[in-house]
Amino acid sequence: MPLPAPELPEPAHADLDSMLSRKFGKEIANYFSGSPLNRVSFLRADHTFLSTAFKHPSTSFLVFSNLQPLFKSPTELAYVSYKDVVPLTGEDPYMQTEDEMISTYNSSKFTPQLIFLGLDERNKNGLLYKDHYKGAPYFAIDATPKGAIQSAAEELAKNLQERGYHFGEARMHMTLPAEEAAIYAEARHLLDWNARNPFCAQCGNPTLSVNGGFKRACPPKDMGSLKGAIGSTNSVTPSDPTERPPCATRTGISNLSFPRTDPTVIMAVVSPDGQRILLGRQKRWPPHWYSTLAGFLEPAESVEEAVRREVWEESGIFLGRVVIHSTQPWPYPANLMIGAIGQAIPEGETVHLGHDAELEDARWFSVEEVREALRVGTSGLGDEAGPEYKEGGLRLPPKTAIANQLMTAVVNGFLGGDSKM
Amino acid sequence: MPLPAPELPEPAHADLDSMLSRKFGKEIANYFSGSPLNRVSFLRADHTFLSTAFKHPSTSFLVFSNLQPLFKSPTELAYVSYKDVVPLTGEDPYMQTEDEMISTYNSSKFTPQLIFLGLDERNKNGLLYKDHYKGAPYFAIDATPKGAIQSAAEELAKNLQERGYHFGEARMHMTLPAEEAAIYAEARHLLDWNARNPFCAQCGNPTLSVNGGFKRACPPKDMGSLKGAIGSTNSVTPSDPTERPPCATRTGISNLSFPRTDPTVIMAVVSPDGQRILLGRQKRWPPHWYSTLAGFLEPAESVEEAVRREVWEESGIFLGRVVIHSTQPWPYPANLMIGAIGQAIPEGETVHLGHDAELEDARWFSVEEVREALRVGTSGLGDEAGPEYKEGGLRLPPKTAIANQLMTAVVNGFLGGDSKM
Repeated sequence: MPLPAPELPEPAHADLDSMLSRKFGKEIANYFSGSPLNRVSFLRADHTFLSTAFKHPSTSFLVFSNLQPLFKSPTELAYVSYKDVVPLTGEDPYMQTEDEMISTYNSSKFTPQLIFLGLDERNKNGLLYKDHYKGAPYFAIDATPKGAIQSAAEELAKNLQERGYHFGEARMHMTLPAEEAAIYAEARHLLDWNARNPFCAQCGNPTLSVNGGFKRACPPKDMGSLKGAIGSTNSVTPSDPTERPPCATRTGISNLSFPRTDPTVIMAVVSPDGQRILLGRQKRWPPHWYSTLAGFLEPAESVEEAVRREVWEESGIFLGRVVIHSTQPWPYPANLMIGAIGQAIPEGETVHLGHDAELEDARWFSVEEVREALRVGTSGLGDEAGPEYKEGGLRLPPKTAIANQLMTAVVNGFLGGDSKM
Repeated sequence: MPLPAPELPEPAHADLDSMLSRKFGKEIANYFSGSPLNRVSFLRADHTFLSTAFKHPSTSFLVFSNLQPLFKSPTELAYVSYKDVVPLTGEDPYMQTEDEMISTYNSSKFTPQLIFLGLDERNKNGLLYKDHYKGAPYFAIDATPKGAIQSAAEELAKNLQERGYHFGEARMHMTLPAEEAAIYAEARHLLDWNARNPFCAQCGNPTLSVNGGFKRACPPKDMGSLKGAIGSTNSVTPSDPTERPPCATRTGISNLSFPRTDPTVIMAVVSPDGQRILLGRQKRWPPHWYSTLAGFLEPAESVEEAVRREVWEESGIFLGRVVIHSTQPWPYPANLMIGAIGQAIPEGETVHLGHDAELEDARWFSVEEVREALRVGTSGLGDEAGPEYKEGGLRLPPKTAIANQLMTAVVNGFLGGDSKM
C-alpha cells in the first residue's frame, strides 16, 4: 500500500526521474482529486477567453438538475454541446466584461448558473488561446427547471432522456472513474456554493456570479430594484433609486466573494500498543458499520490540534503524535478532508462518549479484525457488503473514502514497526 | 530542526513514552496554534454553562475594538473582568436558551458580540461544571463603540487607558508569546467572522449570533421587522408581520451557519538538483524581500494539486513530488495555512511570470543564500532586519511565519540526502 509521508527521504541528488515517478506513484490521490483539467484560473476574468471557450466545437457541458449530474451510464457522465445549452444561456453569456456585468446588474433577470471548469490539455482538437493555453474547455451548467429557463430546461431534460441520459445521485455509489469524479466534484462544489449564496452576507443584498462562476460580486447598483435595496431606508434616500448602500465587499477583497471550502479532519486512531484501531458509528448507519472519527477544523486550530480535540470530544481518548496522511476533496457540500493518523497516549485510551453526543458508539477493534473487514466488509453506505462478508462482522467504507485509505495505511504499517501490524 | 513527517517510522512497540515525547517535540507547532484552552465545543449550546462561565470570578475577558485586541504591553494581552464588561452586555447575556433567543429575535436590538473561547484547565481556581469540566473561562468581546453600547464602550475604553492598557494592531510585529497569540487568533477569527456575516447569504435577512459566538442562526421571525422581511413581498402577505420567508439554513444543517476557515497552500519549492529554492515577491514588499509562494486552495482540489496549480500559475514551474510539512492558523481574516515542500521536475524549472500577474518577481536562490538570509535577514514586514544584515542581501519573513519554517526545513535537509543541503 502506498504511503506518502513517513517513508525514507531520498537523497536530493538521486536519479530524479525514478524518484519523481516513484513519489508520484506513492502519493495518495484520493477519490474526487486527480482532475485532468487545467483550471487556468487567471483566465476566468477574461471574458473574451470565456466567450471563445463557450462557443468552441471541442467544448463539453456537464448538465446538472437539482445538483444531480447527467449520466450516460452509472460509470459515465454525459456531456452535451453548445447547441444544447444555448436555449438556456443565450448565444453568448460572456459578451460583457465583469465591469460591464456589474454596472448593468439587474437582480430581477434570471440567468442559469455556469461554471468554467478548465481545459483538457490532452485533447488536440481543443482551442488555442494567446499562443499558450490549449485544450478542450469544460463547463458545468445548472439546468434545474425554474425562473426564466423553466420551459427551456424542461425541453432539454426531455431531449436528454430521449438520448438515454438521466440525472442521478452521484454520492452513494461513487461508480464514476476517478477523473470523471474529479470533474463532477469541481462542478458540484461550485454550483452548490453559488446556489447557497444568492445574497451578500455582509449587506443582505442580491449578488451576481462573475469570474466563470468562481466569484460573487455585490454590485453597487441594481437596475431591478426600483423599490431600493436593504439599508437604503436607513440612510438618506438616494437620488438614484437603483443605488445600493455601501458594502465592505466592494471596497476591499473579501473572502465572502469567493467559494468556501471547509477543512475537515478525519483520523485513524491507533492504540498505545499499536494493536488496536479506534472506530465509531453514527446511529443512522447500517448495523455493524463503523468508520474513523471526523469533524470540522475550527478557527485558529492547526490540523494536529483539531485532530486531538475532535477525538477527545467524541471518544474521550487523548492523542499523542498526529501525522497527516493525505487529503480528499468532498463536495457534500464543500469539504476538504484532511486525513491523519494519531496514536493514543497510554494513560488516555479509555473510551468516554459523554462529552459530545455525536456518536452512538466508539470502541477499539483489533488490527486483525480491521484488516479482515477491509478485505470482505467494505461497500458504499447504501450497498451490500461483498460475497465473503459474514453477518455480524465489521463493515467499513469503500476504497473511495479516505477513511478506508487511513485504516489501510495503519494495517499496512504506516506507523512502522515489525510487529504483527 | 524538527521535522514531523518524513523521518524514519518508529516500531509501534518501542518505548512509547520516549516515542511520544519525541514525536510531540518534533511536531511543528506554528505561531497562532498551540492554544492552552480546552474549547469544550459541545458546551456552547448549554446556556447554563455559558452563564456560569460568564459570571465566574476566574473568568478573563479579552476586549477588542475594531478588531484590535487590548494590550498591557507589546508582549502581553490585557484581560478584564466581569464587572468591566457588564455595562456593555448586561448582567447575563446567556439567560435564554438558544431556542428562546431565536424565537424572540429582534433585529433592531443591538448586543455586543461575545465569543466563548474555552477553559484554561491549568487554573485551579476555575469553575467545575458537571463534575467533569474544570478551568478558568475565557471570553472575547467586541467593545467597538457603536450602536446601543457606544457610550458604555467609550467609557470602558477611557477606563482601560487609565489603567495603562491600549488597543493595538497585533499583526505586524507578532510579539506575543505563542499561547497568548493562539488565544488572540481564536478570538479575532471569530469576531471577524461574525462581523462579516450579519446577513444570511441564503435568504438575505439578518442573522443572530448563538452557540457562544460559533454559529449564526437565521430566525424564522423578527420582532423588529414590522415592515416585513426580504422575500415576503414575493409571497402572500403573511398574517404575522414578524414572520420571515422560508430559508434552507433553518430546515437542515448549513455550513453558512458556521465559521468559515479558508484552506491556503504555502510551499517551499526546491529545484530538481536540490540546490536552489524558488521565492517570489509582491510589489508592495520592502526591497530585497522575498517569500515562498502561496495561494488559496480551490474547491475540489487535494492539497498537492493546489500546490502544483498555484506554483505553475504564479511562476510557470512544474512540480513533481509534494509533501505536507505543517499547518498554521492565520486569522487575517480566516486562513488555515497548509505548508508543503515541493520539488520541480527537470523539464519544468524555467520561471514564467506571464500566466498570473500576482508576483512582481519569482526566481531561484541558492540554498546557501537562503540559509544566510534566515540567519541575518529575517524580520516582520514593517520592521528592520537584524544588525548583521547587509543592505542588498535577501530579506525573509520571521520565524513566526510558516514560510520561514518551510525554508528552514529545506535548508536543514527536509528532502534528505547527504549533499550540502
